[in-house]
Amino acid sequence: MVTNDDGITAPGIRALSGVMKMIGKVVIVAPDSPQSAMGHAITIDKPLRMTRVDVFAGVEAYQCSGTPVDCVKLAVDKVLHAKPDLCVSGINHGSNSSINIIYSGTMSAALEAAIEGIPAIGFSHLNYSFDQSFERVIKYVRIIAENVLRSGLPEGVVLNVNLPDAANQKIKGIKICRQADAKWEEEYFERADPRGKKYYWLTGKFVNKDAGEDTDEWALRNGFVSVVPVQYDLTAHRAIAFLNENWKLSHASR
Amino acid sequence: MVTNDDGITAPGIRALSGVMKMIGKVVIVAPDSPQSAMGHAITIDKPLRMTRVDVFAGVEAYQCSGTPVDCVKLAVDKVLHAKPDLCVSGINHGSNSSINIIYSGTMSAALEAAIEGIPAIGFSHLNYSFDQSFERVIKYVRIIAENVLRSGLPEGVVLNVNLPDAANQKIKGIKICRQADAKWEEEYFERADPRGKKYYWLTGKFVNKDAGEDTDEWALRNGFVSVVPVQYDLTAHRAIAFLNENWKLSHASR
Repeated sequence: MVTNDDGITAPGIRALSGVMKMIGKVVIVAPDSPQSAMGHAITIDKPLRMTRVDVFAGVEAYQCSGTPVDCVKLAVDKVLHAKPDLCVSGINHGSNSSINIIYSGTMSAALEAAIEGIPAIGFSHLNYSFDQSFERVIKYVRIIAENVLRSGLPEGVVLNVNLPDAANQKIKGIKICRQADAKWEEEYFERADPRGKKYYWLTGKFVNKDAGEDTDEWALRNGFVSVVPVQYDLTAHRAIAFLNENWKLSHASR
Repeated sequence: MVTNDDGITAPGIRALSGVMKMIGKVVIVAPDSPQSAMGHAITIDKPLRMTRVDVFAGVEAYQCSGTPVDCVKLAVDKVLHAKPDLCVSGINHGSNSSINIIYSGTMSAALEAAIEGIPAIGFSHLNYSFDQSFERVIKYVRIIAENVLRSGLPEGVVLNVNLPDAANQKIKGIKICRQADAKWEEEYFERADPRGKKYYWLTGKFVNKDAGEDTDEWALRNGFVSVVPVQYDLTAHRAIAFLNENWKLSHASR
């Protein structure tokens, strides 16, 4: 199964479907419009539409009015008649390294597939342009997908793959990494609309204070494809002891 | 700082603000409409509006046209002039235990605050009705907030607090837990609209196969307030060795 968050007409999903067709049978269920930065949003308060479309030669494809996560849920319930061997999401136009995974529709679709018990990978490319070429990164997509099909993934784990912009640097290989501890520092534009009423528009600066050479940010800066194994168990296990020790909970509460 | 995902007029945020006013100075920035299940969505392709409103006696409050995460980002950049001592989100009308955290706007707002370096807690109540009373759970909200203000939280950790429905059972105390490994099994309604065109509407069954007595699901079923420490480093650290061992990466790629 193939999905994305840039919408079914984006070049990235076309490139990804092309690679996956070389490996096996492909079914596409993707948003009918751009859904970037939708995180793990799902549609609960209105109905969804899903329409079969013929935009990929010889491939069963559907566009859906919902979010990337909606696409995966609908595909599992209404389109796929058996659990697929793999769900791939992307190729996203733009990075989803480090903290960006939290906001990313691409990665949320992959996470949702993992929750459904499907091995899953999200692919993102460090170039926001729709005119870029995926030619020099596509072989890494194939290597990674084939590795997952051959070795599987530990339960509850999904891969966040970021591909360097090969137009700017030679790709040195693939590196297994951890998520860098980086963040965005917000600076909203504050302007007046034509009627003089204030509006705010999100902008910001990406700040990485994590100097670790085992991070995705380091790998990407140094010409590697970064692969971060990601989990949906968000428990901070190390903090359980901290809370039990520091909070004065009664015996009955422990 | 107080926010939520049910919107600024929901009874839950009124109850939460009421408790927080007993502890300190409160500023509210919350969505101007319901934003449940928005996950960590942010608004990037259109401007946001924010308006000061006077719906809480004596409290500085703003409604915002964006998602819960947008509210936190805007508050940090445009409303709060110093980092607040605490960000609380909720009280959500409905559970955000186990896997629900992934879809929850309430918890995403709290996570965003943690990313910004603000100690944060998301509160949810196991009752979806807007007519419920928070009377019997509110003291636990205060105990937990005061514990966090006194002891702080480990870096990168935020709390997911779920409150049992006290109308149905006596609350026994507070329990520090891990996220139960549960999921939703989707079953979309499939109907025809007035023009005969198909639509799909999300429904589903919550399935918990995790028998652990250290989970939030166990705690809630047994009358405890569940507190799960949560992190935004999604790296599945245990899987890094698995990938390095099983993938045939060249030396240069390691």
